[in-house]
Amino acid sequence: MERVYNFSAGPSILPTPVLLKIQAELLDYQGSGQSVMEMSHRSEDFIKIADTAEVDLRELLAIPANYKVLFLQGGASLQFTMIPMNLMSKHKKADFINTGEWSKKAALEAKRYGEVRIVASSEDKNFNYIPNFSASDFSSDADYIHYVSNNTIFGTRLVKFPEVKDKVLVCDMSSDILSKPIDVSKFGLIFAGAQKNMGIAGLTVVIIRDDLLGLVPNLPPMLDFKVQADNASMYNTPSCFSIYVAGLVFKWLKELGGLKEIEKINEAKAKLLYDYLDQSSFFAPTISNPKDRSIMNLCFLSASKESDAAFVKYATQKGLVNLKGHRSVGGMRASLYNGMPLEGVIELIRVMSEFEGLQA
Amino acid sequence: MERVYNFSAGPSILPTPVLLKIQAELLDYQGSGQSVMEMSHRSEDFIKIADTAEVDLRELLAIPANYKVLFLQGGASLQFTMIPMNLMSKHKKADFINTGEWSKKAALEAKRYGEVRIVASSEDKNFNYIPNFSASDFSSDADYIHYVSNNTIFGTRLVKFPEVKDKVLVCDMSSDILSKPIDVSKFGLIFAGAQKNMGIAGLTVVIIRDDLLGLVPNLPPMLDFKVQADNASMYNTPSCFSIYVAGLVFKWLKELGGLKEIEKINEAKAKLLYDYLDQSSFFAPTISNPKDRSIMNLCFLSASKESDAAFVKYATQKGLVNLKGHRSVGGMRASLYNGMPLEGVIELIRVMSEFEGLQA
Repeated sequence: MERVYNFSAGPSILPTPVLLKIQAELLDYQGSGQSVMEMSHRSEDFIKIADTAEVDLRELLAIPANYKVLFLQGGASLQFTMIPMNLMSKHKKADFINTGEWSKKAALEAKRYGEVRIVASSEDKNFNYIPNFSASDFSSDADYIHYVSNNTIFGTRLVKFPEVKDKVLVCDMSSDILSKPIDVSKFGLIFAGAQKNMGIAGLTVVIIRDDLLGLVPNLPPMLDFKVQADNASMYNTPSCFSIYVAGLVFKWLKELGGLKEIEKINEAKAKLLYDYLDQSSFFAPTISNPKDRSIMNLCFLSASKESDAAFVKYATQKGLVNLKGHRSVGGMRASLYNGMPLEGVIELIRVMSEFEGLQA
Repeated sequence: MERVYNFSAGPSILPTPVLLKIQAELLDYQGSGQSVMEMSHRSEDFIKIADTAEVDLRELLAIPANYKVLFLQGGASLQFTMIPMNLMSKHKKADFINTGEWSKKAALEAKRYGEVRIVASSEDKNFNYIPNFSASDFSSDADYIHYVSNNTIFGTRLVKFPEVKDKVLVCDMSSDILSKPIDVSKFGLIFAGAQKNMGIAGLTVVIIRDDLLGLVPNLPPMLDFKVQADNASMYNTPSCFSIYVAGLVFKWLKELGGLKEIEKINEAKAKLLYDYLDQSSFFAPTISNPKDRSIMNLCFLSASKESDAAFVKYATQKGLVNLKGHRSVGGMRASLYNGMPLEGVIELIRVMSEFEGLQA
C-alpha cells in the first residue's frame, strides 16, 4: 500500500496514526466485541467516547466553563440557517465581514431572519485580500457580528479581529479550527465542519456561550441550540462515528503537544511553501499581502492555464493529489491542514522545483 | 477477538463482511492511496461511491424513475421538521396514524406548519397494538398522511395500509427499510435513518416523488428537498463515510439475493423467537396479536422486573448484549435487523431456555 499526499481542501487528509487506530479497533472496540459503528448512542461505551471527545476539545481550546460544546449534523451550511434563527432575537440585525463564498452565503441566509449589513468586503477583487475595518464600523444594535477566520477557497486569513466589547462575535472556523490556540472567551459562537482539521464529514462542532441559548422561543428542536445543549447533543442519534474519529484526532493533537505545537508546525509548513513561491520565477502566490495569506489553504498560479493543468497532472503522477485550485480562483491550491505532515510539503516543493526545472 | 451478538435497537449490528471490507480498505481505498474518509466529496472516486450506492438502493427497492433518492443528515428527527415544512403547501393539513413515540413526535412538529389530525391511535394501551382504520377515515384535504411502518420502541408493525388513492402517503421506515420488498409507487415520500438496517448513524435516506419537490418556495436551502435533489444531495459536503458504509450494505444485500431473500431470513428469525416466546412459561411477548408483531424489534417480559434484570445480565455474560427493553415498555427487546445472523437468534433462544431452566 502506498499512501498519497492529499492536498484536498476538505474532506481532507487525516493523521495516519488516527487511521491506523480506527482500523485496528474497527471490529472490536477495546474488547467490547462491537464496532463503534454498531454501538447504541446511549451505551456506556459510546457516552464515554463522546464525553472524552468533549473534554479533550475543551482542554485543547481552553474552552471556558460558560460555553457549551455541541456535536451537530448538517455542516456549516445548516449553521448559516441555525445561527440567525437562534441569535437574531432582539434587533433582528447582524453585521457581516464579507471575505469569500462562505461569508456571502451565510449573509444571504441570514437575510431570511432580519437585516444584514456588510461592514467590509473584498468582493471587488475576487476576495484576494482581507478588507480593513475597525471596531467603530459595526452597528450599535446588531445582534451579532459574523466573520470567517480562514477562507478555504481564496486562501486568505483574518488574523487580528478588532476588540469589539459587548458584541456577540460569531466565527466560522471551518478551515482553521485547532490549527493554533485561540481565545474562546472573545466569541459568542464558534462553528466548524469537522472534515478539515477535526476529522470527517458529517459532524459540525458548535461552541456557544451559555447566555446565547434560548433567546428565540419555540424553534424546531433539531434547529434549537438550547434543545441540543440541554440534551448534550443527543436529542436524537448523533453522527456517532464522526464523533469517535474527532475524538481520536483530539487525542492525537494532545499527544503532539496541543495547539501551540501544531501552530509551530503549521506556520513552518506554510512558510516553506510561501518562501518557495516568493522566489520562484515559475509559480506565484495569488495573495500578495503576506499578512492576509492563509496557512491552511495556499493558492498559487503558474504562467498559464495550460501549465497549471500540466503541473497538476505531473504532481498527481508523483503521488501529490488534489492540487487543482477552486474554479473561482483557478491555478493550484495546497491545503496544509493539521493532518498534512511536514514531509508532504517538502515533497511538494521538491516536485514543484523539478517541474519548474523541466520548463526551462 | 470475540464478537458479541448485539441486539441494540439502533445504532445496531452490521454484517461482519461489511465491517471486514471497511477495515481492509480503511487506509487505501482501491489503490487510491487514500481513505474514503479523506476523499473530497467532489472527487471522481467519491462521486462513484455515492452514485453506486444510489443505483444499488434503486435496484433493491425497485424505485421508479420519477422518485429522487436523497442522502441527507439530521436523522428522522430533522425530517419531522422538513416534511411538513416542504409538504404542507396547499391546505396546510396532515393526517397521522399514531402508533408510537416517533409518530407522536412527528405529529407534534408538524403542528408548527399547519393542522394535524390524528386519524387513529393506540396510545390508550401504551401503543401495544396497531389501531384499525380505513381509507375513508382520512381527511379529503390533507396535504399528506404520515405513518410509521415499524415501531422500534413498542415492537409493532403496520403491514397492510389501506389503498389511499390520490393521497400523498409519507412513511417513516427508519426501523424496517430494506427488511422486505415494498411497492415504492404507493408512497409520496419514504424516509429512514440509516443506523438500523442501512448502515451507520449520520445518514438519512429520503425517497421522494418528483412532483412533491418545490411545493413551498424559498425555504432555507439545507431544509429544501428541491435544493437537495437539484444538487444530488451535495448542496454542501454530505456525510460521506456514512454513504460509503450504506453502499457496502446495499452490495451485501444484493449479493445475498436482494430483499425477497432477506425477507425470508427476517421472517424466519422472528418466527423462531416468537414461537419460543409463545410456548415459554417464563417469557411472554408484549404484543399479543400476531399480526401486529414487529419482525425487527421483538419485545418480551418475564415474571418480574427483577427476573428481567437478572436475565439481561445473564445474557450479557454469554455475549448477547443490549437486550434491555426501552424504559417506556420495560422487559426485554431483541432487535433482529438485517445485520443479525440467524445464529444470533438461535443462540439467544438457547440462552433464554437455559435461563428458564435455571429458574425451575
